[in-house]
Order: sequence, then C-alpha cells, then structure tokens
Amino acid sequence: MCVFLLLKDLTDSDPEPSTVERLGAGPGSGFKWESSPVKDDPHFHHFLLSQSEKPASSMEPISKRLKVIEEVTGSTSIQAADSTAINGSITPTDKRIGFLGLGLMGSGIVSNLLKMGHVVTVWNRTAEKCDLFIQEGARLGRTPAEVASMCDITFSCVSDPKAARDLVLGPSGVLQGIRPGKCYVEMSTVDPETITELSQVITSRGGRFLEAPVAGSQQLSNDGMLVILAAGDRTVYEDCSSCFQAMGKTSFFLGEAGNAARMMLILNMVQGSFMATIAEGLTLAQATGQSQQTFLDILCQGQMASTFVDQKCQNILQGNFKPDYYLKHIQKDLRLAISMGDMANHPTPMAAAANEVYKRAKALDQSDNDISAVYRAYIH
Amino acid sequence: MCVFLLLKDLTDSDPEPSTVERLGAGPGSGFKWESSPVKDDPHFHHFLLSQSEKPASSMEPISKRLKVIEEVTGSTSIQAADSTAINGSITPTDKRIGFLGLGLMGSGIVSNLLKMGHVVTVWNRTAEKCDLFIQEGARLGRTPAEVASMCDITFSCVSDPKAARDLVLGPSGVLQGIRPGKCYVEMSTVDPETITELSQVITSRGGRFLEAPVAGSQQLSNDGMLVILAAGDRTVYEDCSSCFQAMGKTSFFLGEAGNAARMMLILNMVQGSFMATIAEGLTLAQATGQSQQTFLDILCQGQMASTFVDQKCQNILQGNFKPDYYLKHIQKDLRLAISMGDMANHPTPMAAAANEVYKRAKALDQSDNDISAVYRAYIH
Amino acid sequence: MCVFLLLKDLTDSDPEPSTVERLGAGPGSGFKWESSPVKDDPHFHHFLLSQSEKPASSMEPISKRLKVIEEVTGSTSIQAADSTAINGSITPTDKRIGFLGLGLMGSGIVSNLLKMGHVVTVWNRTAEKCDLFIQEGARLGRTPAEVASMCDITFSCVSDPKAARDLVLGPSGVLQGIRPGKCYVEMSTVDPETITELSQVITSRGGRFLEAPVAGSQQLSNDGMLVILAAGDRTVYEDCSSCFQAMGKTSFFLGEAGNAARMMLILNMVQGSFMATIAEGLTLAQATGQSQQTFLDILCQGQMASTFVDQKCQNILQGNFKPDYYLKHIQKDLRLAISMGDMANHPTPMAAAANEVYKRAKALDQSDNDISAVYRAYIH
Amino acid sequence: MCVFLLLKDLTDSDPEPSTVERLGAGPGSGFKWESSPVKDDPHFHHFLLSQSEKPASSMEPISKRLKVIEEVTGSTSIQAADSTAINGSITPTDKRIGFLGLGLMGSGIVSNLLKMGHVVTVWNRTAEKCDLFIQEGARLGRTPAEVASMCDITFSCVSDPKAARDLVLGPSGVLQGIRPGKCYVEMSTVDPETITELSQVITSRGGRFLEAPVAGSQQLSNDGMLVILAAGDRTVYEDCSSCFQAMGKTSFFLGEAGNAARMMLILNMVQGSFMATIAEGLTLAQATGQSQQTFLDILCQGQMASTFVDQKCQNILQGNFKPDYYLKHIQKDLRLAISMGDMANHPTPMAAAANEVYKRAKALDQSDNDISAVYRAYIH
Repeated sequence: MCVFLLLKDLTDSDPEPSTVERLGAGPGSGFKWESSPVKDDPHFHHFLLSQSEKPASSMEPISKRLKVIEEVTGSTSIQAADSTAINGSITPTDKRIGFLGLGLMGSGIVSNLLKMGHVVTVWNRTAEKCDLFIQEGARLGRTPAEVASMCDITFSCVSDPKAARDLVLGPSGVLQGIRPGKCYVEMSTVDPETITELSQVITSRGGRFLEAPVAGSQQLSNDGMLVILAAGDRTVYEDCSSCFQAMGKTSFFLGEAGNAARMMLILNMVQGSFMATIAEGLTLAQATGQSQQTFLDILCQGQMASTFVDQKCQNILQGNFKPDYYLKHIQKDLRLAISMGDMANHPTPMAAAANEVYKRAKALDQSDNDISAVYRAYIH
Repeated sequence: MCVFLLLKDLTDSDPEPSTVERLGAGPGSGFKWESSPVKDDPHFHHFLLSQSEKPASSMEPISKRLKVIEEVTGSTSIQAADSTAINGSITPTDKRIGFLGLGLMGSGIVSNLLKMGHVVTVWNRTAEKCDLFIQEGARLGRTPAEVASMCDITFSCVSDPKAARDLVLGPSGVLQGIRPGKCYVEMSTVDPETITELSQVITSRGGRFLEAPVAGSQQLSNDGMLVILAAGDRTVYEDCSSCFQAMGKTSFFLGEAGNAARMMLILNMVQGSFMATIAEGLTLAQATGQSQQTFLDILCQGQMASTFVDQKCQNILQGNFKPDYYLKHIQKDLRLAISMGDMANHPTPMAAAANEVYKRAKALDQSDNDISAVYRAYIH
Repeated sequence: MCVFLLLKDLTDSDPEPSTVERLGAGPGSGFKWESSPVKDDPHFHHFLLSQSEKPASSMEPISKRLKVIEEVTGSTSIQAADSTAINGSITPTDKRIGFLGLGLMGSGIVSNLLKMGHVVTVWNRTAEKCDLFIQEGARLGRTPAEVASMCDITFSCVSDPKAARDLVLGPSGVLQGIRPGKCYVEMSTVDPETITELSQVITSRGGRFLEAPVAGSQQLSNDGMLVILAAGDRTVYEDCSSCFQAMGKTSFFLGEAGNAARMMLILNMVQGSFMATIAEGLTLAQATGQSQQTFLDILCQGQMASTFVDQKCQNILQGNFKPDYYLKHIQKDLRLAISMGDMANHPTPMAAAANEVYKRAKALDQSDNDISAVYRAYIH
Repeated sequence: MCVFLLLKDLTDSDPEPSTVERLGAGPGSGFKWESSPVKDDPHFHHFLLSQSEKPASSMEPISKRLKVIEEVTGSTSIQAADSTAINGSITPTDKRIGFLGLGLMGSGIVSNLLKMGHVVTVWNRTAEKCDLFIQEGARLGRTPAEVASMCDITFSCVSDPKAARDLVLGPSGVLQGIRPGKCYVEMSTVDPETITELSQVITSRGGRFLEAPVAGSQQLSNDGMLVILAAGDRTVYEDCSSCFQAMGKTSFFLGEAGNAARMMLILNMVQGSFMATIAEGLTLAQATGQSQQTFLDILCQGQMASTFVDQKCQNILQGNFKPDYYLKHIQKDLRLAISMGDMANHPTPMAAAANEVYKRAKALDQSDNDISAVYRAYIH
C-alpha cells in the first residue's frame, strides 16, 4: 500500500517543518504537509490517480495540488523515493538555470520554468526555436559551454545517447563550461552506460551530476504533469526542487546514477508490451467479427481500465496516430530493455515479442507515428 | 468517447419511460434514467471507473448506483450493447429461477439473486453446498433435469466446456427438462463451438438459449459487481434483467450466440498478456537492482495505472497468490484465444509469448494459484 | 550412436534367422541380415543418410537396398523401434489389402503396393481417381464398409481428423465392415486423441488397430521412400511388413496407439521451426545487403547442411512454392504440437513463435503453397 | 544448384591455368583444377558435405582433397565467392605471417599454418601458451606492435569486440606497427561496426585490411576444416591463399568489410535457433512419454538429418555439454543479429524466441557449456 503525504491549503495552520522542507517547500513556501496513510480507503489511491488537478488543456496550473509519495518499504539498496510538489505560489530557486534542447519535451518544460518565475538561459541547436522563449523572458546562450559556465544548474533534454554525448563532449560542449560546484542534469532518456560515462566526466571536472529522465508525453510536458525519475547527486536533486515542481506532478529519487535510466527503460518496456497487447486484442476482435468499440467499452468497465488504455484505443478507433510518443522511440527502449535483461541473464519474452511487432510496424513506415500505430503491424 | 446514461435517485421525478424499460427497469421499478454524454469532461469517465459504489467487503449493495454504457457507434454487424442496472429497490422478476453450479462464482451470484428477492432453485454436484443457500431461502433441485423442468429460467456456471456439456447432455441433464419456452442461460466461460452446440440442442427442443459469461473474480461476484457479456436470444436477455442487475454492475448484449464467448476470450487474452508483462517488469526491476515497490509507485503515478495493475502488484509484493482467478484458467483462455486466431489467420504473438510463460508457471505447480503467480515463472 | 543392421545380398550365405524374420523377411524372402554397429566410422551414418538408393525420379525401385535401424538404448516405457526393409525381390503378403484415400500421398503408396505385387482394393471419395489404379490392377470397392469387409488389412490416408473419423464412423463407414480379426491401419496424420478414439471403436468390434502416419512428401511417397511411424497392435505391424517395405525406406514401431501421432507431431513441429528459421536467415541476409545464394552456399558447407535446408532454400531462391507439404498442414501440426505441450505443461517457445509466422503466411494466402512459402511472411 | 570446381590429383595432367591461379594455386603449386557443374547428380553435393576427407582426430591432413564452391548467381552487389584449397603439397606463401591470440581456435589455426610450412611469429596475452608453438618452429613476438611491424600479414583471433579493439588500439597495439603495405586480418567474430572502425584505422595508416571470421568449432579448427568468410581488401584475401588453405576447407570472399561479420551473425543466428528447436523437440518427446533416442533415430532417417543435428543430439543424450562453441557466445551472436534486424527494420521472431531461451540457460549457469546446454533451459 502506498503512503500519501497530502498538502493542505495555506489556510490550515501547521508550524511543523516537514521532510519536504529540504526540497524547498518550507514554511515560507506557501504550503505545508500532512501525513495521511490512506490505508482504510482502497479507492482513495485511485481517486488521486484518476484526477488531474490541472485541466488538460490549461497552461495555468494555479490550483495545482500536491501529491507526494514516499516509499516506506525500506529497501536498503535503493534510496527512499522522494517527491516534489507544485503550487501556484511556490518560491522559485534563485539559482541561474540553463536549458539545452527545446524539442517537444523541452519546450513545455522551459515554458513552465519561466511561468514559475525561474531565470532561464536557453540554447538550441537551431537557434530560431529560442525566440519564443526569449519573448517570454528567457536569456540566450550561444553554446552549451557558455550556458554551463553562466548558470548554476544546466539541464539538457535531447533525443538519444549520441546527441546527449555530443552535447557534453563535443566542440564548445558542456564539459568546457563545467567548473567545481556546477550542476548538470541529464533529462534525456538514454541507457545506463551513457549516464555512467557522463556522470564520470562531469564529476571529474568537479561538477555535480544528476540524471532526471521523465515519464510522460508532449501533452503532459505542456501541462507540467510529468513524472520525474532522478538519480545521482542528491544535493542536486534538492537544489532542483522548485524546477521539478514547475515541470512535473511527482518526482522520485532513485539513488546512484544509472538507476533512473534503468527504471525508465523498464517502465517503457511495460508500456510497449501493453500497447502491443491492446492492438492485438483490438485486431483479434475485428478478425473474429466483434465490434472494436464494444471491446473498448467492456475494457473500460473492468479492472484493466486506465487512461492509457482508453486514450490509445480511442486514437486507434479514430485512426489518429499523431505522435504523443514516437513509435521508433518505444522500439528503441524495448531493445535497450531487452539488452539490459541480456546483461542480467533475465528473460523478457513479452518484450521480445513486442519488439518484433514494433519492428514490423517500423518496416511499415510507422516510425514517426505514435506508439499506437503498432496497430498497423497487425492489420498489414 | 463512451456515452453514459446515469441513474438518478428516486427522489427525482421523471415520468418519461426510458430505453431501459425493455430491460424490466420501467417506471415501476423504482428508478429512472438520464442521458449524459460526458464529452466535455475527460476525467469523468475514469472517476466512474475507479469508484466502486459498494464497499468492497460489503454483501449489502443497498446503495448501489447505476452505471450504464450504451454503445453509439452503430456497428452494423453487431447488435448494440445494452446494459442493466441495479438498485436497492429493484423489482425482481417473478419468473422461477434455477441455478446449477455453486462454485466460487456461482455462490456469490445466487446469494445476490436471493438478496434481491428472486425465487431460486439450486442444484450442485456435491449437494452439501446447497444447504447454506436453502437456509437463505433457496429451494433444492434433485437433478439438472428437474431444475430445468421446474423453472422458467435456468442458469449454469461450471468450470469448463466438458462440464458444461455434461450438465446439458448427460443423464438427468438439462436437456431432459427443456420444453418449449424454457430458458437456459450458460454462464460458464467456454469456447464458441461449445456455445453453438448447446444453443442448437436447447433450441431444437423449443427452448430459448442465452450465453452470459462474466468478467470478474470471486470478490466481484460476491459484491454483485460482475460485468456480464450476453449473446443469443435477446428476449431471454431481457427476461433476465433483474437477475443481471442483482449480480453485475453492467451487462452487454453482443448479438448471436458465440459472440460473448469470443469477446470474453479476447478480454482474458489481453488480461493474461498484461499480467505476464507486469511480472516481467517487476522481475527485471529486481534483476537490475531496482526496488519493486518503487517500480509500482511510479507505475501508479502514470497513465498505465489501473486497479488491475495495483492489486496484482500488491499481491506479488506481499507474496500472496491466493486465487482470485485461477492461473490454469487464464492459460486455458490464452490457448483458446490463440486457436481462435488460428482459425481467423490472425497472428497473436503477444498471447503466444504469454502462453509459454504460463505453461512454465504451470510446470512450477502454480496452476491453482492466482494468475499473478506467473511471477514465479520469471524467478525460477 | 545409432546401430545399423545391414542387409547383404542373397549371394552371401548366412543361415542364421534374424529379428526381421518376424517382419516377414525370413530366409525365403530373398535377403538376410548382418549386424553392424558402425561405431568406428562416424561418417558411415551420414553416408547412408545422404545416399538415396533409388534415383529420385524413378518409379522402379528394383535395386532398392535395405537400411534398418534398431534402437538399442533399451528405453523401458517405449517398445524398441523396429524397421522394415525392401528389396526388389520381396515376397508380397497374400493378405487382401484395402486402401481408402487416393490423394497425393495415397496415390504413390498404392502405386508402390501394386508394383510389389499386392492385391489391392481401392476406394476414393471421388471415384474417378480409382480408374488409373484399376488399370494397374487394383479392384474397386464401392464403400469404405465394403472394402473393410472384403479385405484383411484396410489402410486409410486422408487429410485431417474429421475426415479420418467420418471414414470410420460415418454412413457405410469402415466400422460397418469390421469383423473379428480384420485389421485397420490409420495412416493419416492426426492428433493422439483421434487415434485413441478410432482404436477403441475398431477393437470394440473385434478388429485390430494400427496407426502408421508417414514422414515425407509427395515425391518420397512416389519413390517409396517414406519413413513410417507405427504404433498400436504389433501383430498388425508385422502383417504389414511387405506393404511397409513397398512404400517406405524405414519403419519404426513405437508401442501403444497414440505414440506415433505424438512423435509425428513433434517431428513436424521441429520441421516447421527449422523452415521458419531458414526463411528468417534468408530474408535477414537480403535485408542487410547479403547474397541469399551465397548464404545458402555457406550453409551447404557447414554442419547444418541437410537435404531439407538445400531443397527448401533452392525452392525459395527460384520462387517455386509448389506444395510438397502444405503450409496450412504444418501450421495445423504446430498448433497441435503446442497444444500437446500445453497438456504436458511443457513450454514450446520456438514452436509458438513459428506458429505465429505461419499464421501470417496463411493471412497472405499461402495456405496451399509449400511450407517454404513461410518466406513470404518475412517479406510482406 | 551449387557448382563445384574439383581438384584432381597431380597425377592427372592438365596444363590449363584456372581461375584459382590468382589465389596462388597455380601450376607450380602442385595441383590443378577442373570445373565440374554437378547438376546431373543431386546427391553428389551431399556426398561431399558429409564426407570429411581428413580423419576427425588426425592432425595430419596430408591427403586432404579440395572442394571449391564458386557462386554463379551473378549477384551484382556482392563479389563472387571464391575459395581456396588445400593439398598436402601446397606451396606456402613466403610472406612472413604474424598471429595474435592462441585460444581454442587460434591454436589449431597456427598449428596448421606451421605444418604447411609457413613462417609464423606468434603473440599471446599469456606468453606461456607460445612455448608449444615455438617448439614447432614459430617465432616469438613481444607485443602486437612488434608482430605487426615484423610481419607482412598479421592475423588476430580473440574473443570479442572489446578484445579486438584493444589489440589494435591499445598500448603497444597493432596500429603502432602498421606501415604502408602491411596486412591485417581480423578473424574474431565481431559486429560490423567494429570491423568498419578497425578497417578505417588500419587503412588510415596505409595498411591493408581483411576481415575473416570462421565458421566452425575447436575440432574443425584442429582439423583444418574451418569455413572462412572473408571481406575487405581482395588483394589481402589473395595473399592469404595458402594460409586459408592450411586452416580451412573452403573460403568465401564477400566484398566490402563488414559483410563477413553480417553473414557470420546470420549463420550463427540460424544455428542458435536450430539448436533451441532441437532441444525443444527432444524435451517435448520426453514430456509426452516418447524415447529421445528414437526421436533422434527418426530425425536421422529424414531430410532434416545433418551432422549438426546428429552431434548435438548425441551430446545431449549423453549429458555431454563440453563446449565446442560456448553457449554465451551464441547468445551474444543472437543478440547482435537481432540488433542488426532492428537497424534494418526486419523482424526476427524465431531468433528473438531463441534468445530468450538462451538467456534462461545462462541464468542456469550454462554460459560456459556448449550451445547444446540450452537443453537445460527446457528441463528446469
């Protein structure tokens, strides 16, 4: 059973400092904490999960409530998972923030950082993308090295391991701007080996390193509702508190660098297998003369119902495969997760089967569509 | 987008007859309907799904609210899905009800039929199981044939196709009690071919046939919260309205006999693949040094969160494999679904991979544990 | 290490009777036996395998030499495998032979029975097919029942379990012609359950039952080079000695009825998985810019080289998918083998993967092509 | 149909030079060629395959006959496959040969190079292994750099991509000894990307590069019966003619560097899937009460019979899992082949299924056993 720490409104009085204080959510931050192990109400948990406090289309998360999950299982090998919270009146850190990479995910994140009052210097490979954010108050960095040297905490969010490496190690790269005490936060979803390598080079220059890949989609990024998995230097994690509150609904700290990459790959592996399974069910329904809409309706009535199942099925039934998460990326994640299983001598037959289905979808030119386009691998 | 018909309390006045009237929930039945296409609120759907109106442990569904889903897609090959509703003050049918098979599912169903005021005659292979229900007001039938001849509508709920066939075709079987107009409702989860055969023999004697397999578990059966998939003779479906309201939260009518079996097999195929995927993720987390509880916590925060994921993971983390649905039965369902794909020339690689994992679990003596025991196939 | 019993020419003198005598190959049969455990020559075995004593295109196996394999491992649960032999001068049994089913396999078999001097009465569902064989000396039976009542040993070779059942149990079926002592030999490849059922009904009338499915193809059937797997009543097996010599190069007796069906399904399962693997290799070669012909040439040089690999690759490279064994039949065999694994709680992940590839091939209209057409599932 | 170039004995007279002359097998080399397209004899091919001209246990391949396969399909993207030949009286090249890596494969190769009269300088990470070969006439090199600078052609044969890279790029590595005209031949089985990288660094120093991975086993290496796949600089391939004749029974030239790695991975992928399929068949036989020896006997009689099937089954039945090819290496090859399919968007469901079975075998501590130990993944 998960244990929830619930945020009450400021109108409640509670002078007691909480564990969250160290995350920058102290008495002066405009909200306070209350521990509430909701063991007696099995539905409360899911009420929280199914309620999105910010309207999906809104960019103004003023009324955002806090949900914090604290791991209480006392796993020894893993640091306790913490979390952050966001409130309309949170106090942004006064550290200078740098951000490298203004793609689909990065754009939403930077936008939310600015809204919450952070001072942000941005850089993007194609500089024009920076203009919009400069109008919103961001400063322009000319190179990754310059951003890293000008800022206290530099985030990056790019597409793959190679891009992540180049950004740090390439000409005018981050590494040239790193000096003792500087923080670097890698938000790209990459393999654990890349994280280990980046962590080593950053710390070898006296820098402080955190990985912080995010679970979510373009929409959730825009809404500031990402789930952040962080690992590495805990003091960096704490320094990033107001940033994570701005961009996400929850964050977890998972211990040493590499753990967040591992966990993210497993989550995406599960997601990829779920998606392929749903597509298999929908197409078998059709192949045996059943209504796909009815199949979805029945699924929605059962215990497997989830936002994911509902949204992806809706998209498929509407023939809408606009990418919320690229199919080619979930295939890459499956491959990396399977390789991770290889190294651990751990069979992953479901992921292996799913991977083959996605490869067929890629062969059918679905790489740049949403993961739900795996459906097409079953009907061609 | 699903369209919901919401039931309001009797205290509201609404003289207008509704589509549900034909299901026996007319003006005199103590409740009325209101159409509410909840298109504007994307979260409302899931609010409904995640809220269970009856406390999970209660056997008194007095305050049960109604949720009705009506398919509006107008699929031409398939009959529109209808649904039933239950209310503390529903009017039970005055037809005489027979019930054959008092196993885990049947027991909960009969109990709820009696609570709602139905007149029920029961029979079970081992007669002692009938005693409890006789104390609750049920009558005793000596043979399936006698029950069928005494009652207007006879339900059966047994373990597999062979048992279902024997009950009808064997000595003192149902067939010997069938006369023109008698209704027979097969609730066992079997293959479409068995349904077709039973439908033919029942109707050849002038009987009326309905299949009505249920999605759910022992707990949901006890709670009267099953999802009922019905197909066959629609007039029987309508005559069963108050019965289905007593035992389930929703029902769907899917057209000609065999369709409910097909749909149920696909649903269980998806469930089996989901379960294996979850087990694969949990074990890969462990194999790569990650906390399984944290993995679950993160899953709970994302869009894949569902009652199913949460409950099954909790059970696994607690080492609790008490059967809510037998592992051997989900393997059988996977096999039957794969065969159905064979006949339709439709590949089901995810189900095929899952099936092999369940076979390994069976070889590890997990047949009579819950489906979540597939976890053990990954750690041995 | 296999142990070979080699047949020498009659010109050698050897008065000693052999185990083969009971198979009707006694001193008067024109040949004799010599035991030769060829342990010292690891290549001798394959010399035998790769040499086909009859030219592939010849219908005149006059010079056919004998190859006999005797199992010496002393498995206790299984009867020792025996074998038969063929020689240009074998003595045909004087028992009256019936043959039901003149399809691709049956035609070659009957032709060889006649050539070796047997008295054969034939029946086929479409009677015209009998004409050719009547010209070669066969007699015409009007119904299966008539053939069974007129003949001492009746063989059948039809397409599937249903056809096999109908032939025995249907109107004017074999069962009506069975009387005490009559022999019935089921050569169709069916599941063990069907064999058990047929065995029971035949023996309940005093008949004697043998199953004898064959491994091979249309070509091998024409050439009299089938491999025969027999099980059931051993005295029938012995009475069939000259028949099996006429149609096959080797036979095995596998104990109780059902074992031959089991063994045949496993062999076909392996064959199906091999075929899919070869197709996978050939297509991956092409997809990565390699010559398929070179791939085959290299395979031919290695230890995986076999007649099967060579022939199937040649056919694929020539785009020749004329059926030697129907793709739809190997898919059926895979399905039955997987089900057999289900019942034994034995995972068969390779067969499960192969089965899905064949299903895709069937969806691409390859059912009536050769099994090598599974290649097309990889390129579409 | 393959086309064979057959070597006749020197006692035949044939003044005509052949295509093989450019491979160093000219008139003075002690043997000559005759083209023989054996189209008329379908069994000749397999006679060649199944006959090993050298006794398996002999280290003296004096009487070795030549088999040459020439591709005649005229694939345009791929160079025609050539081949080499060996004869007791071949003329060894007078170029100085270097050899790095005296493991299981390298030892047999060097031994055969020396026997055929080559001048060989050896180096091994653990120097003691060199002693035996120095007694046989080899010279000792102190570092890879020294060997490369002293010799005209340097071969290396190590365990994996990392070892191969280190040997070239590490301290005192090959690269430091490469000068214009020097030849480097990479015989390790690695991925195409590693080959491309090594090729680039060698040629950037003016060196000439060839990859030449070998198909075979320790036994075949000792016997000089390897199959060599070569690609890269064709002049190096030709300069290596007498070396390849000494170590192998056949060689193929496959065009640009990387092609040999690709082809080798596909071959090993097929081998890995075959092996898993065989294990699946053997264990299903046992699980359904059939004799495994009989299963093998029947396989041996059919068209799937091969040296590979026979040897691996024998080993399994004897419980002999001594490595001829490491299980962990075939799993690595499967993984690399699957990745290669990923990059080509080509599904490989059979390899994916096999890979999972091997991972299970690794988890059961079978990594350092023979690939046939995958059998144990099916019985535990």
